[in-house]
Amino acid sequence: MPSAPTSFEALRATLQGAPAPDTGAIAAAEARNETLTKPPGALGRLEEIAIWLGGWQGKAIPTLDNVQVLIFAGNHGVTAQGVSAFPAEVTAQMVMNFEHGGAAINQLSNAFGAKFEVHALDLETPTGDFTQTEAMSEADCLGAIAAGWNALDTSVDVMLTGEMGIGNTTSAAAIACALYGGDPDAWVGRGTGVDDAGLQRKADVVARGLARHPAASQDPISALRCLGGREIAAMFGAMAHARVAGVPMLIDGFIASSAAAVLHALGDGMLDHAIAAHKSDEAAHKVMLDRMGKTPLLDLGLRLGEGSGAALALGILRGAVACHGGMASFADAGVSEG
Amino acid sequence: MPSAPTSFEALRATLQGAPAPDTGAIAAAEARNETLTKPPGALGRLEEIAIWLGGWQGKAIPTLDNVQVLIFAGNHGVTAQGVSAFPAEVTAQMVMNFEHGGAAINQLSNAFGAKFEVHALDLETPTGDFTQTEAMSEADCLGAIAAGWNALDTSVDVMLTGEMGIGNTTSAAAIACALYGGDPDAWVGRGTGVDDAGLQRKADVVARGLARHPAASQDPISALRCLGGREIAAMFGAMAHARVAGVPMLIDGFIASSAAAVLHALGDGMLDHAIAAHKSDEAAHKVMLDRMGKTPLLDLGLRLGEGSGAALALGILRGAVACHGGMASFADAGVSEG
Repeated sequence: MPSAPTSFEALRATLQGAPAPDTGAIAAAEARNETLTKPPGALGRLEEIAIWLGGWQGKAIPTLDNVQVLIFAGNHGVTAQGVSAFPAEVTAQMVMNFEHGGAAINQLSNAFGAKFEVHALDLETPTGDFTQTEAMSEADCLGAIAAGWNALDTSVDVMLTGEMGIGNTTSAAAIACALYGGDPDAWVGRGTGVDDAGLQRKADVVARGLARHPAASQDPISALRCLGGREIAAMFGAMAHARVAGVPMLIDGFIASSAAAVLHALGDGMLDHAIAAHKSDEAAHKVMLDRMGKTPLLDLGLRLGEGSGAALALGILRGAVACHGGMASFADAGVSEG
Repeated sequence: MPSAPTSFEALRATLQGAPAPDTGAIAAAEARNETLTKPPGALGRLEEIAIWLGGWQGKAIPTLDNVQVLIFAGNHGVTAQGVSAFPAEVTAQMVMNFEHGGAAINQLSNAFGAKFEVHALDLETPTGDFTQTEAMSEADCLGAIAAGWNALDTSVDVMLTGEMGIGNTTSAAAIACALYGGDPDAWVGRGTGVDDAGLQRKADVVARGLARHPAASQDPISALRCLGGREIAAMFGAMAHARVAGVPMLIDGFIASSAAAVLHALGDGMLDHAIAAHKSDEAAHKVMLDRMGKTPLLDLGLRLGEGSGAALALGILRGAVACHGGMASFADAGVSEG
């Protein structure tokens, strides 16, 4: 597998060479699906999921024996602008909570048989306040991308990635506004629970960030570097590596989707290896998913981050794989076809 | 626990005495939920599920150690009217498939750790063709209700029930039309895959059934008895017993919902122990759920029956219970509150 890109040019070039799914495996999975003891299409999106997984895994019968949950944490200089209901030290406190197994993502990873790991990215040195300066230098951004890229185990059946970073709904909103345009008000939301004044501050901060960094609206990687955070860059790196290595993945909520949106903007088919796990309660998430052409599997009002929505959707994938792999055929079961 | 009612009067009386959930357990589960390391409400419906389960289980920390999947199968005289894309013998063939572990519901029960059982109800003697006669005599209907009632293990943490019965989307549509009124066209759908002519036949059959049995539009139990099938009556019996015994349950798709709708019509709060697992692809299912005041957990295009949508939603319940039971508190984890 290619090693982590050491320049943005190398990253773009590597992505251009990303593979398509295995059309033979897709055809074999589709053929198997048609034989199973159910009316055609009666399992809805479970059928779509099984065939999609088969294509990326190169198997007629996809598996979920190894699932990797990759959580990245980063701190944001923009918290100085009063954009979060929680103090910045909560990022490091929650990393401890992840390491001790006490967070929601730990429980969900265990419940659905996934291997969990958390990577804290230079928490003592927050990124630059993007209303004043670039969030990350080129070297800092490439380092964070490499942290995500190198964390991916390319042998897994499915990967999902999530984040922790006080202030990062503001970064995600700024990235989305840079990529897709529109009014900053439309992209900011209540995050962990800011009040009306906090919401207005977030919109103002996004507007100032976009004005400060005109390149961000021209180039997806500049949006990531100037407005993002290390955990967003690392998620992007893990997603990009998954695309290049052909590892299927689940997209979590609003912040993970901002990383996915950067990848989506870098070329046709860059998110073909990804399914949107859920629609977050953060209002602009639905718009972001629409822009990426993704229909979320779940809509349960989650707005926690940490990869929690993606981990919950592993249950749906488990159901899809169990049916596809375990059901009898009409012929084997002696059931008459319609 | 009360034994299966031997008359419809006894059934109604037993339901009148059905208990409320444990308000102390609800308060304790709510209090615990507020301490967990996440912003308030950030786990969305997972929080609601955990508290609801706690109330019905009488526990501050709900469990999912024992889950019962109860599938009932019945044959329908109304198949003589050409309402299904599959021949009636498929009901018995699919019962064999369930017994051999080859159906979707077997895989989903295994995937989510539920105990599966199937009860075939007098398949050799289909119910009456409801365009000509009552589907079931009073004794036949009470017997089917008792089969469902007695199949429930009242010690389980959660129950779900599903069905197999060629022709039963027509019965379910007729019950819904009797309970809720409106045009038969609005209640029939493609079921396992009928063509346009089949769809028109289904609407015509429903209209003839309602005209033949005026009592069905006046009384929910008459709707069940005159228009239903044994598997629908058995699901109703299992759901009614769960309500009386305080066992929380998941409602599956269109046909299971027709059984739930009969229970819902018999008194206030009769479905308080139930969550709607999913919205089926059968078009009228959404309307039926709205009438029952239920917001489905999943919307993944399933239209298989067999309890498959409810079993898939067990994954969501597992996620809710894992988070509620396993997460650290702010105090224990040393995380600052917002």
